[in-house]
This record gives sequence, C-alpha cells and structure tokens, in this order.
Amino acid sequence: MSLPDLDSFLSPRSIAILGASTHRGKIGAVPVRYLVEHGYDGEIYPINARADEIEGRRAYASLPAVGRPIDLAIFAIPASGAMAALDDAIAAKVRNIVMFSAGFAEMGKEGEQAQREFAAKARAAGIRVLGPNCLGFMNVARSVYATFSPVVATGENQAGHVGIVSQSGAFGAYAYAMARERGLGLSAWVTTGNESDIGVADCIAWMARDPATHVIMAYLEGCRDGAKLREALDLARAAGKPVVAVKVGRTELGAMTAASHTAALAGDDAVFDALFRQHGAYRARTIEEFFDIAHCLAVAGLPPNTQVGLLTVSGGVGVMMADDAAEAGLDVRQLPAAAQATIRKRVPLAATHNPVDITGQVTAEPELLEATARAMLGEAGHGSLLIFLAAFGATPAMQALQQQLARDLRRDFPGRLVIFSTLADAAQRRALEAAGCLGFTDPARAIRVLAAMDFFLRQRLREPAPAMERGDGTAANPAAGPAPRPGPCNEADAMEMLGAWGIPTVAFQRARDSEQAVAGARTLGFPVAMKVLSADITHKSDIGGVVLNVRDADEAAAVHARILAAARDAAPAARVDGVLVARMVRGGVECILGARRDPALGVVIMLGAGGVNVEIMGDVSFRLAPVDIAQAREMIDELKTSRLLRGFRGAPPADVDALAQAIVRLSAFALAAGDTLESVELNPFVVLPQGQGAQALDAVLLTAPTDLPTSPTTRTP
Amino acid sequence: MSLPDLDSFLSPRSIAILGASTHRGKIGAVPVRYLVEHGYDGEIYPINARADEIEGRRAYASLPAVGRPIDLAIFAIPASGAMAALDDAIAAKVRNIVMFSAGFAEMGKEGEQAQREFAAKARAAGIRVLGPNCLGFMNVARSVYATFSPVVATGENQAGHVGIVSQSGAFGAYAYAMARERGLGLSAWVTTGNESDIGVADCIAWMARDPATHVIMAYLEGCRDGAKLREALDLARAAGKPVVAVKVGRTELGAMTAASHTAALAGDDAVFDALFRQHGAYRARTIEEFFDIAHCLAVAGLPPNTQVGLLTVSGGVGVMMADDAAEAGLDVRQLPAAAQATIRKRVPLAATHNPVDITGQVTAEPELLEATARAMLGEAGHGSLLIFLAAFGATPAMQALQQQLARDLRRDFPGRLVIFSTLADAAQRRALEAAGCLGFTDPARAIRVLAAMDFFLRQRLREPAPAMERGDGTAANPAAGPAPRPGPCNEADAMEMLGAWGIPTVAFQRARDSEQAVAGARTLGFPVAMKVLSADITHKSDIGGVVLNVRDADEAAAVHARILAAARDAAPAARVDGVLVARMVRGGVECILGARRDPALGVVIMLGAGGVNVEIMGDVSFRLAPVDIAQAREMIDELKTSRLLRGFRGAPPADVDALAQAIVRLSAFALAAGDTLESVELNPFVVLPQGQGAQALDAVLLTAPTDLPTSPTTRTP
Repeated sequence: MSLPDLDSFLSPRSIAILGASTHRGKIGAVPVRYLVEHGYDGEIYPINARADEIEGRRAYASLPAVGRPIDLAIFAIPASGAMAALDDAIAAKVRNIVMFSAGFAEMGKEGEQAQREFAAKARAAGIRVLGPNCLGFMNVARSVYATFSPVVATGENQAGHVGIVSQSGAFGAYAYAMARERGLGLSAWVTTGNESDIGVADCIAWMARDPATHVIMAYLEGCRDGAKLREALDLARAAGKPVVAVKVGRTELGAMTAASHTAALAGDDAVFDALFRQHGAYRARTIEEFFDIAHCLAVAGLPPNTQVGLLTVSGGVGVMMADDAAEAGLDVRQLPAAAQATIRKRVPLAATHNPVDITGQVTAEPELLEATARAMLGEAGHGSLLIFLAAFGATPAMQALQQQLARDLRRDFPGRLVIFSTLADAAQRRALEAAGCLGFTDPARAIRVLAAMDFFLRQRLREPAPAMERGDGTAANPAAGPAPRPGPCNEADAMEMLGAWGIPTVAFQRARDSEQAVAGARTLGFPVAMKVLSADITHKSDIGGVVLNVRDADEAAAVHARILAAARDAAPAARVDGVLVARMVRGGVECILGARRDPALGVVIMLGAGGVNVEIMGDVSFRLAPVDIAQAREMIDELKTSRLLRGFRGAPPADVDALAQAIVRLSAFALAAGDTLESVELNPFVVLPQGQGAQALDAVLLTAPTDLPTSPTTRTP
Repeated sequence: MSLPDLDSFLSPRSIAILGASTHRGKIGAVPVRYLVEHGYDGEIYPINARADEIEGRRAYASLPAVGRPIDLAIFAIPASGAMAALDDAIAAKVRNIVMFSAGFAEMGKEGEQAQREFAAKARAAGIRVLGPNCLGFMNVARSVYATFSPVVATGENQAGHVGIVSQSGAFGAYAYAMARERGLGLSAWVTTGNESDIGVADCIAWMARDPATHVIMAYLEGCRDGAKLREALDLARAAGKPVVAVKVGRTELGAMTAASHTAALAGDDAVFDALFRQHGAYRARTIEEFFDIAHCLAVAGLPPNTQVGLLTVSGGVGVMMADDAAEAGLDVRQLPAAAQATIRKRVPLAATHNPVDITGQVTAEPELLEATARAMLGEAGHGSLLIFLAAFGATPAMQALQQQLARDLRRDFPGRLVIFSTLADAAQRRALEAAGCLGFTDPARAIRVLAAMDFFLRQRLREPAPAMERGDGTAANPAAGPAPRPGPCNEADAMEMLGAWGIPTVAFQRARDSEQAVAGARTLGFPVAMKVLSADITHKSDIGGVVLNVRDADEAAAVHARILAAARDAAPAARVDGVLVARMVRGGVECILGARRDPALGVVIMLGAGGVNVEIMGDVSFRLAPVDIAQAREMIDELKTSRLLRGFRGAPPADVDALAQAIVRLSAFALAAGDTLESVELNPFVVLPQGQGAQALDAVLLTAPTDLPTSPTTRTP
C-alpha cells in the first residue's frame, strides 16, 4: 500500500477537456470556461472535432492531436464513449483522467463491470483516474477548475487554507457553497465519486503534502481500504494538519440507506469511530459542526493549551456553558486565586471560579470586559476564552469594542483562541475573523468547537510507545510466538497459541480419557472446571459440555464420561479431542477481549464489559491494530464499567496493567496471524486483583478454512 | 396552591412609574418612553415630584397623588427607597408592582431579609410583585412595555404568538433580541428576577390563559415550588399550548455555578427532566434548539401525525438525516409500496424507502421535487417532510420554486410540517415562513425540531389512567393502607406498611428469640435468610447482620445468636427488635424501587437497575408522584437494562405488570405519607417470571423525626 503523488493530477501543467463544446450549456463547456475565467496559468486544450476554438482557446480534434504533454484529461463525455477515449488518452500519453461520466458502478452490475475494465486498463497504462460519477476537483490556489459543478458559477470562493474532499458530489457542492457563505477560504476541493482509483484517502494524503492546505475536511460514505485511510490520516497528523471527518452511516437505519445508495462497503460504525480517534481525526456529527470546527482551525488555529476560560455577563448562561463544557470533558478548572482576586478588585460582585460572571455591571463599565479577559488569558493562562455577551454585545459600540479587543488580545496573547458569543451579523463575524477570533450566537456551538480543539491538542501530547508495547506483531516483540495456521483449532490449541504470545490463560490440562482427566485435575488442584474439547462445538454449555466445580477424582472421572456422552448425543459429527480440565478461578472482574479481521478496515481489537453489559449497554471499546500500551489503557478507560476495574464498593483494584498488556499482545498476535485470522475471542477474560495478573478462562479462535489461499504478512503498516 | 390571575398585572389599564425622569438616560425614564412610543392605550402616570410633565404626560408627585386606580406601579428606584414607596402604593391601592430595583436577595443575607419584608408587606396588602432585580415585562399585544431593557430600543420586535418567560434578565434580553433577528413574533415577555412573589410558573399559567400566546418559552434557573410549576405546565397542556423549557444547572459543574450565582435552590437535574417530560414540556439543551422549536411551533404548528418523510437530492446526506432521525427515535417508516411506485415512475433511479433520494436528476427536472413531495404527503401520509436540496436549492430559480411549493403544499395538505434544508438568506427564510414552512441550512437542526414535535404529539396521545391506577394516594385506591407515622421504623414495620398498600414483599417472620427464629423458618420453609431487625442499623451486611441460605433448625438457632451478638458488638447503642427471618427467593430480575420527598419538587419516584448498574451506568428513571400505570410502564421502558425484564438470552420474561403496579402503589403510599416521608427504598426489588409477581426483599423507610410537625396531606394536586 502506498499513497501516490498526485501532484501532476491536482496541480497539472496542462489540461485537455473531452466533450468541450461551444454550447455553454453543455457539461463539457463548463470546465473550459471556469479555467479561462479563473485565469488558470497552464495549457488548456479543448477537444472537439467540430470546433476551431472554444472560449478563445484553440480546439483539437482528439487527444493525440494535441501533440504535447497532457497532465490531465477531463472526460466530460457519456459513459459509452469512455473506453475509446481512454485508448486515445493512452496514445496521447495522458497522465491523469478526471471522469465526470455517470453510468458506471452506481448503475448496478453492468456498470460495475465497465468501471472495473476502464480502471484496469488505465492502471495498466499508468494513468490515474478520479471518478467516474464525480464532480471533479478544484485546486483553488492554482486556479485549476476541473469541475462542471454549477456552484462555482453562483459566486466566488476566496482562496484559503482549507482542503475539502468529498466522496459525494452533491455534498461536495453544498460544502463549497457553505464555505463561501461563511467566507471560509479553500485551498483545494475534490469529489471522488465512484472511486475506481483515487479515493478520499489519496486526497487526504495529497493535502497533507500540499503547502496551501492547513486544515483538511473529509466526507466519507464508505471505505474499501482502511489501511490506506489510516496511512493518509497519519501523514496529515505528521504534517500537523488537523483532519475533520464526516462519515455517514452511523445507526442501523442509516447504514441500511447507505448500502442501498452507494457501491461502497460500509464498515462497522464503532470501528470507524475508533479509526478516526486513533489516527487523530475528529469526527463531526453534523454539517454545522463540521464547518464550525474547520472554520475555527482556519481562522485561529489550535490554542496552545487545553485550559478553557468561560466569561459571561449572564450567570444562567454561564451555567449552560459550564454544563456543556463538563459534558464535553473540557478542562474548565478554577482560576488561580490571584487571577480571581484581580477580577474581584474590578468587579466585587463577580463570580470568579470559572465561569467568570462579571454581571450586568459591564453594561455600565464596558472596560471591565478587557480587564477580565486579560486576567484570564494572562494570570490564569487559559488557552481558549469563550465570552458570552448576551444582547449587550450586539450594540454598535460593543461590536466595535469586540473588534478592538479581538485584535489586542491576539496581539498580546498570540495563538490564544478567543470566541465571542452574542448576536452578530456577517460583517461583524468577518471582522472578528480577520483578527483571528470567532463569533457564535449560541455558546453551545462554541463549546462543540472547543471540544474538537481539546481532542486535537490531546492527540499532540501522545508519545510513541516502546517497541515491545506497540502491539504491532513484529519481531521486536520478545513475546512473539508462532503465527496461527489455517484450519480448525480447539480451545486448548487456542489457549496455547495465545499463551505463546504472552496472553495469560487459565492453567489447564488436556484429557483424552478419564485417567488423564483425574491426573490433570490432581495436577491443577481441585476443584476444577471440565469442558468438551472440540473445534466443532462452539456452544459448549448449551449441550452440557461444561461442568464447573468438579470436587474430587471420582467426580472428575464421572464428569469426563458424561461430557463425552453429551457431545456424542448433541453433535455426533463433531470431531472431539477429549476434555479440557482447567483450574477454577475465583474473584476478579470479567471482561471480553477479542480481535476480528475486517475486510475493509483491517484487524479490529475489542474490549468489552463482562456479563450482560457488553450486549445490553453496548459497553465496548474498539481500536484498530496495532494497539499500543497507551491506546490499550484508553480502551480500558472508555468502558462505561471501567470503575469496576478500579476497585468498586470496597473491592480491590483489578490488575489493569495486566489487562492492558494482554490487549497489546492480542493486537500483536492478531496482526501476525494476518489473513489466517477470522476472529478470536477470550470470554470471560478475568482481571484479578492488582499484582495477580489476568487470565482468559475460555478462548475461541476462528481461522480461515485451509483451502483458501492465505498470506502470512500483516495488512497494516 | 393556586395560580393567581395576573390579568391586571400583565394587561393593566393604568401604569404609574416611580423614578420617572426627564433625563432620558435614567432607568425610570425608559418605560415611560417605551409606553408612549409604542402607543400603550391605558393610563400612564409618571411619578416625579420635580416635574410637571414627562414624555408629554402629566407627572404626579406621588402614587397617592394620582387619585385614580393604578393597576400597575413600576418601581424604577433604588432599593433603599422601596419600603417607603410600598407604603405609598398601599395607600394608593396599587394592585401590582414590578420592581427593577437591584440590591435584594442577590446581594446576600441582608438583602434577602429586606426582600422578605417587602414581599410580606405587599402580600398582606394584596399587592402582587414581579422582581425585584428583574428587567420587567412586555405585553406586546397590548403595547405594555414595563421594562427598562435597552434591547427594546435597538429595534422593533413584531407582535406574534410566542410568550417568553425568563428568570434571568440577561437571558431574557438576549432571547428578545434573538426573536427579533429571526422574525419570531412575541405576545408577551416577562423576566422574573428574584421571584419574591411571581415566578416563572405563574407566568406560564398566565400565558396558558392569554389568547395572544400560542407557544410558551420558559427559561428557569431554579424552582422553589415544584407543585406550582407542574400545575402551570398542566394548564398549558390543557390549553393546547406547547411549552419549550430551558433549565440551567444540568451537570455537577453547572449546578455548582448555579448555587454560587442565584438564590434559587437547584433541584436534582434528572428530576427536572422527569418533571418536564411528565407534564408535557420539552426541555431544550441549547439556545439554538430552544428557538428552533418555538419557531417551528409558531410558524407551522404541530403536524397531524408523527410520521416523518425524508426527501433528499444527496444519498449521503439522506443517510445523515436517517441517522439523526433514528437516534432521535423518530417514526421514519418505509413508504407504502404504492407511494414508492409512484415516485419510481417519475425517477427510476430513486431510492424510495425513506429517505427518498431523487438524486441529481432533479437538477435537470426540478418538477420531480413537487411530484415526490406530493407522493410523500399524500399517498404516504407523512405528517412532516424534510427536504434536503444541497447547493441546488440556493439558486434563484429553485428559491422561487421552494416558495411556490411551500404555499401549494400547505394549501393542499393543511397542517403538514414542511422543512427545506439548503442555503437560504434571511429573505428566503422569511418567505418560507410566511407560507408556514421552515428553512434550516443544516438538516440536523431540522431533525432536532422534529424530535420535539414527536414528543408533543406523543404527549397528546396519552390517555388518563383509571382511578386505581393513578398512584395519587387518594381513597379511590382500594389498596390504600394506613399512612406511616413519624418515628423509627424497622425493616419488618416497613414491609408490613408497604404490604398494606399492595406492594408485594417477601414472606417473613419476626423472631425475638431463637425459638421464634426456628419456628418462623419452619413456617416459611428452609432455606431462609436471616437479618438483624433494627431501625438504627442501616448497613446490616457490613456488621455481619445478614446471613443467607440458612438450611435447618440448628443453623437457624445458631445464626440468630450470631446476628444479635454481631449487632451488639458493632452498634451497642442501637435498638434491636430481634431478627427478621425471610423466605429465600431465587431467580427473577433485580431492580431498585424508591421514593423520596424533595423539598422543592415534591415526591420523587425512582426505578433503578439492580446490582451495580444503577450506580455505574446511572441506569435509573425518575417521575414525580403521582405516577400512573402508563407512566410506570414508561419508567420501565426508560431503563437501559429494560431488555433484561423482557426475557434476555433465553430467560423467561419478567412480570413487568407486577413491577408497574408496584410503582403505582409506591407512588400512592409516598403521597399519602406526605411530609412524614423522608425516603423509602426497596432494594432489591425482585421481578419474578411473568405471572409470578414481584417481591421486595428489603425495605428501608425513613420518616421525619417525631418532634417535627408533620402534615398528613399530600403536597401535589
């Protein structure tokens, strides 16, 4: 997997337009006009056999007729002519194609086949393809308008530093129009449509390298290659460019709709959540939030620390902001005593903890606002400041004061994020933005933005884990055992294999006959648990294949016979490898640990609550492998029932370190298993009191069937 | 408790203004000017000893000097002069006072005392008081501007049908300005400030009766009298006027801030949630949502049914809308086959389930929009229709088309709610609103509004419960037992008392000595549970006061002695009434049932999950008593673990009817107990399999100490 350099694509020196037309209404006429009107500085070659000139540029009969290098060919032609045009493009040594043409994978099987053929032929010729069924792209910084979207014609977007990539053309166009309405300057805008070749991930990677792009907005409907997406997000993170993502298809109802509308394979939504979080991208839940966050990043950038100051002229709204901030987990700590004293010296009746409420007194003495803001940014050192001014902030005098304050505070406290909440028209908002500050009528919107800033800041504070705690299944891991082979695997095999990777399992013995069962139980010490040992029987309890608390030798012998008889009765065709005798484990906190291979996203690691809560409460946390030790700890903290592990109602704290280690090792094991692994589940996985470790009491390992070709390599970087 | 008729207050025929001034900058000058400028049609009496005339109206030296009836006196004077002015007002037979004056309860103990004295004297004279420390009120319909808020001067609000009541002046002013910015017409606007007399509840009740008000927006910071608030909400519901509420002080951080900023007693937030839900008010979480919902109610009214149709030109955004709708629990059922066929006839490629995606084809054939909308409102019968048009909807032609469509659809499908989501400027939004439709750029905002409409509609569908299932503790309840008396109450006493009210408890026997213990256990049948019986020992297990699974007579005798010895050791001062012997109950689903008396809000009934989930997951549902059978079922459904009661993983379904009955009876018991009750908790309360009922296995009843005066009457209507 490697992310291509799309420079010649998104920043071409020459563009040919198939379907170019002298009729301005035609789709093919649009990009020629846009390119000319916006002053694209490269070569423009309209292709039209029946015209000499289009939009003042010489027209050519065909791609080969151009006779000069063509970085990009725009296919504004019907699907039926695409293959012939591709032959021309190959002949003309075209490097890249953007295909507007609809009528491919979105139309069903036949279209899918045609799309596959087109893409294969282009790939073989070394040509990159955007689309088909897309609105094209714009490189605003270089005035490359390779799109026919009418939204460009309805007004001018200013150039700026936000890159937008959208799988959907309709959403892309809407995003373009929304950016314009907000005055949010764009660097590039790409729609990927059917993604026969170039996908959202490629574009994110390109924007990560594009100097004009500082902030990346990505809209996804599906993802066929999680590894590539993760690599792209890592590139953006390494480049210090925050990514805000919208991924549609959250709930069941939503996912159903997605499947009926797009050819993309929608992955499990919780896994996408984990993927974005893990790779530093913030997932927005609404279109408004998507833009608010990007807007803040573009206008003000990330604040220098997570501390948030709340400043209000209304106690009640101060409470609302504090509520929202607490729910979002923001760092709204109390002001230092000195800063509080400074404020109270000016406003004796002020509440000064945080929120700071300077009350209606500010209407008589507007200068209190600046004094308080300076105490909060200065003495208290807040990275961000949210100022709620109610109706008072909307008077002309106060609007001017806010503009001045915005300039002064950004000058004297560089990089701090200052957001004003009051009524403000577009002109006032633009003025604040010009000073590097923001305005929102509803403070709740500001809090949502601050939550995203908090996320990005915390991402930056992460440190890389040492090699052996990285969970990446490489030889650097001294606990690495042999990789699993395809074929059936019973519980004892699974536990041994996991044990070799350093994942603790309960002490057990295999018993082929009753003598071995008794001897095994004596070795382990009574009481023991006894279970049927068979890769073919997954629901052991249901068939009477599990007996707990076996107390002595006589009972062990009898239970051995009983279990085998039960297995014969219930599953006569199953291959039974005898009985597993295991030590009984008392106490501890039960969890579920698992890993599964997702065909699109890679290896997913799961930690869930024990008992019914994993199902009833959905108390589960996901990450994509490799999961390092810090991420493993995050997974534990994310469980709603994590308090149970910390020592609840007088119980001793559980050995959380052992659990975290087990997660990392499961990650390493699952990655090393590669395509051989379907899934592995340790349930229950008991976390004993601190210092006593943890133990898997059961393990189910599903491998790929032996007759399928497998690759022992890992799928992720 | 009775809600006053505030007509003479909020719709006065004559107004005197204390502190009226010829200096336009003075606070007292403002209401005179507002009244004159807005053409108030009643009498205006400026009170000023040193002026003959103010704003063209004759001034009077004092209130008594007016010599004619004064419905309302505005106190625009310092706190120091308030008492003397009140004497004047009494002499002049003033009926109502609005007090702008600050310097009362918000300033601490002294101010609180002054406020109490003022209020008491006014009350004794039959004078109603709004404030002090408030911004006053406006009755827009009658041009009564009894406020000094500068927000009135910064622009004109149109008259309309939304009433706003806000405890906070700053929030009230902001709300006024926001309403103006949106073009949301107001009927009345009241700020209640310190609420020495008139509170938010009184104003809601007045608006419920006010013919000009159709929709009520209420902003609360605290509530000292839950019963009055509930009565007011019931009045509004009976009048068919939806109430949208914001109550600040949600999370712990928020509540802390509230306590430091207002004199109001903040109740438990979850209980406020329950109160609003129970009495049909919708609690908004943000200022934007607060206004969006009221705006929708004012412009379009409630739709005729809960069915929501989603119509989109972008598949991806269709998925987002479906996601949001699913999360909000909206009724987004599939379209009937016939309606789907109708749409597919026009748009062969459309996804027609719901969301209906008519794709980019609509850009070529805009008339498809109307055809599809008609199929959804007509054939499919959707009560609400949300139409996402992306950037396409923002072109001038499409804006005109939307306006026409809005008019036509509202004419042909009266009362249906139609919301357009696309970019729209203020003029376009106003045009849609004039036709009774709405516009939101972000469809997520529309979904939030639809969630509120769904709530109001479902409230309307509720039916009153039969008398014996009302949980109101009246004689109509045949299961009514004696009310509890003050004083200590041990577990056996508590269970007997609850049993008399029809709340099932485990079978038990009291045992003073070991013979009684053995005899009791024999009567119940071994094995039994044995517990120390003492009103003074609440944590019985912790001191060794509980032994389960006592198997025979010898063990029972020994355990009896052991428990009493343990109690003596651990709590030598405790009064011990012997031992309670109870039948062991196996199986079933454990819950917690409880009731507590909240000094502000009344009797709160609680249902929680059993085990650790009530605490770890906060899996709990609240209602205020009386709780009827339908509400009891809602409480059960609200539990995140309610699936455990429905038969989970092959377990038999639990006797949910018995649980619901127990909740209703606990409500009746708690109400009948009145002030005697502090709290009662049944934990665990075991719900057995269907048909086998339910049983409290333990009961802790805390009553008021005997030396406090108590009232046996219920506190709620």
